[in-house]
Amino acid sequence: MAKSPPVREIRLNAFDMACVGHIQHGMWTHPRDQSPDYTSLDHWVSLARLLERGLFDGLFLADILGVYDVLEGSPGPSLRASVQIPLLDPMALVPAMAHATSHLGFGVTCNLAYEPPYLFARRMATMDHLTGGRIGWNIVTGYLDSAARAMGLREQMAHDDRYDLAEEYMRVVYALWEGGWRDDAVVRDRARRVYTEPSRVRPIRHEGKQYRLDALPLWEPSPQRTPVLYQAGASDRGRIFAARHAECVFVNGTNLGHAAQVTADLRARAGSRPIQIFAGATVVTARTEAEARDRLEEYRRHTDVEGALAHAAASLGIDFARFDMDEPIDASESQAIQSNVESIAASLGSGWTKRMLIDRFILGSRQTPIVGSPSQVADALQRWVAEADVDGFNLSRTVIPECLEDFTDLIVPELQGRGAFKTAYSLGTYREKLFHAGDRLPADHPAARERWGES
Amino acid sequence: MAKSPPVREIRLNAFDMACVGHIQHGMWTHPRDQSPDYTSLDHWVSLARLLERGLFDGLFLADILGVYDVLEGSPGPSLRASVQIPLLDPMALVPAMAHATSHLGFGVTCNLAYEPPYLFARRMATMDHLTGGRIGWNIVTGYLDSAARAMGLREQMAHDDRYDLAEEYMRVVYALWEGGWRDDAVVRDRARRVYTEPSRVRPIRHEGKQYRLDALPLWEPSPQRTPVLYQAGASDRGRIFAARHAECVFVNGTNLGHAAQVTADLRARAGSRPIQIFAGATVVTARTEAEARDRLEEYRRHTDVEGALAHAAASLGIDFARFDMDEPIDASESQAIQSNVESIAASLGSGWTKRMLIDRFILGSRQTPIVGSPSQVADALQRWVAEADVDGFNLSRTVIPECLEDFTDLIVPELQGRGAFKTAYSLGTYREKLFHAGDRLPADHPAARERWGES
Repeated sequence: MAKSPPVREIRLNAFDMACVGHIQHGMWTHPRDQSPDYTSLDHWVSLARLLERGLFDGLFLADILGVYDVLEGSPGPSLRASVQIPLLDPMALVPAMAHATSHLGFGVTCNLAYEPPYLFARRMATMDHLTGGRIGWNIVTGYLDSAARAMGLREQMAHDDRYDLAEEYMRVVYALWEGGWRDDAVVRDRARRVYTEPSRVRPIRHEGKQYRLDALPLWEPSPQRTPVLYQAGASDRGRIFAARHAECVFVNGTNLGHAAQVTADLRARAGSRPIQIFAGATVVTARTEAEARDRLEEYRRHTDVEGALAHAAASLGIDFARFDMDEPIDASESQAIQSNVESIAASLGSGWTKRMLIDRFILGSRQTPIVGSPSQVADALQRWVAEADVDGFNLSRTVIPECLEDFTDLIVPELQGRGAFKTAYSLGTYREKLFHAGDRLPADHPAARERWGES
Repeated sequence: MAKSPPVREIRLNAFDMACVGHIQHGMWTHPRDQSPDYTSLDHWVSLARLLERGLFDGLFLADILGVYDVLEGSPGPSLRASVQIPLLDPMALVPAMAHATSHLGFGVTCNLAYEPPYLFARRMATMDHLTGGRIGWNIVTGYLDSAARAMGLREQMAHDDRYDLAEEYMRVVYALWEGGWRDDAVVRDRARRVYTEPSRVRPIRHEGKQYRLDALPLWEPSPQRTPVLYQAGASDRGRIFAARHAECVFVNGTNLGHAAQVTADLRARAGSRPIQIFAGATVVTARTEAEARDRLEEYRRHTDVEGALAHAAASLGIDFARFDMDEPIDASESQAIQSNVESIAASLGSGWTKRMLIDRFILGSRQTPIVGSPSQVADALQRWVAEADVDGFNLSRTVIPECLEDFTDLIVPELQGRGAFKTAYSLGTYREKLFHAGDRLPADHPAARERWGES
């Protein structure tokens, strides 16, 4: 009898942001949507508890440091539709959520371009301590001119320069996390009155093109030392960076065929180093297909096309106000996220127009939702895993929290019944849970070179 | 019948830091001390709940960005005794504590020298939202060369240059907090699908000597907009800054007479603007004087003289290893915190020596504890309020949490019985509770000039 192939276990993150409108714009106008409570810790703690009930691997938190002002050359459309503005600092949400949970991981987006590496490294090490080793970092270098102007620059650096800066930054923070304190430095010897053995701590010295420092890391080693590293850049330079540094990669989920190409390329570049790849996804489900379609129609009445267009304009670097509805759009000059530009062309064809884009805004973004009964949704997710070779999904929210309650109550059991989702958390840190290996980065990762006594 | 003067209500902060040894060094070696649990959120959440039970106004969190390496020109003594190293980022503790409490305020020390004002302003606004208006900021400009080297500078800026930078920084963050969004900007109009009225939001533009920006604040107005402002600089320039900006000032509590001079000077400079002044204090108490003295002796056995000396060396900018025990110490060249230098000279006399300093290290610092029965401690605190004209105290920890449990169970009721401490929290934000006025800074504060439509 032929043995059937093993069912692949799906990884699951909720994808969220400390704002009202994240991906699916307009949903906040739905009477049951609670996203305007984003300034309340209760809102986030309830979310974290729900995710842990659903055995989600993590909560992935996006961030930006500027406003989307490409459409009409103005922040107006984004402000009206609450397209990622107003927006709070995502890191501040984590400690309260961590205290209310035991297993959920947190992948937090932080732009490395504007904060001294020493300060940032202490902040992440603090989060790793306080969460008991459940913190991850989504490494971004930024792409918004508006953010650069907020930080005192005329405009953002050119794309490849940002990655040069990022390479140097990573080397410095790896050294600070991995190379300053030996694992046996803290002895907490009450009798001898020695908390730390000074001979087991050393300063980190770095003289580079962008950064210079000579400093003892202030913090003792945290459970993971270096946080779990996420990355989402899908340009050529972004993929080189991801293949070198990232443990988890977030890929655009707009087009399966395009995602499959990106995934194959990333895995080839990473070689033997295991990486976990998450695709963006939006799910609308109910007990039956008919109910799910009714729910979609109910949600659709709240879609904000102007908001979706404002978001797409900034992501693609195109002011759609300058184009007629049926005029082919040339995005070759765009300085924005290249993966978005490629992905939209893969979906709509090279001569795509504003009308074609707007027709894709089913729920307020260009990410088409997966709609159906639990078995239909599970089929679709498993198809993505099989055909695009992704490990899991970053689930965007629609109407919150009911979209995650539905997923937890309907899709999780369906996937568990198929052997495609865990039935309990495994022990250990975020990194251990994801890779079933150690707390720390493996020896072939560039961070390992910064360890004391290794080179 | 002559009417007795009204009893002055005392303000109370716990003074802590995200580390093992904060002020009273060596206490961590006491078997009941739990300070080595500082990496655990449970530790901080328990502390916050205890403080709220004791009706403390706030938790004041110190911070430094470098290591104390003045003694012997080495970080060794600080590492051995855990003198503020290892140390985590204090801000990360607040969200979990805020979620577990309803009234406690949080005064967090942040150095403004190394973080872009836009990033920092968003971080504080986020904290103000998440705490429901319970955040304060202790404004520091730093004084450690080791911190400057961690950030990529050869050494720290000169003292007065730091205050020039601080003045400009304050102007920028005030504009970001007070001047970007009108109070009526966020309308959350579901029917019209308008979250924010764009005409009620404007970018902040600043072109200064140190900072330049042109950016819309990303966040909507938080309950207090500008956090409650703390300051602790007691140099001439520091007092000018405090009189202009600070709502609360933290003064050295080593010497009552010196504190009285500083307080009188600060109040004269602030003029009609009310400021609340907190003196540092350490209390050891028990039901009776004899028990309190026994407890002091028990704690004293854990005093770490080398740790206290390492801390004093950095605070005073003097490497005591270079002095004989009885050699008069000349601190006139010191670039360190001037209030510390003045305060120690006020206590020990101008020809003070290392031996005289060490003799003051009763519990591991130069701050002499107030020791006694509840009525004796209350007498001493009220004497400070009456004679040094302080509003309250920043209470350093000895053996944690029992020192705060003792204070809550013994001193708080004693003070309440005298009408010198509140018996319930009043309503409102941190600022409202402290000043019994509005959520926002008053119209005569420099921040008010940055408000939209006011100049």
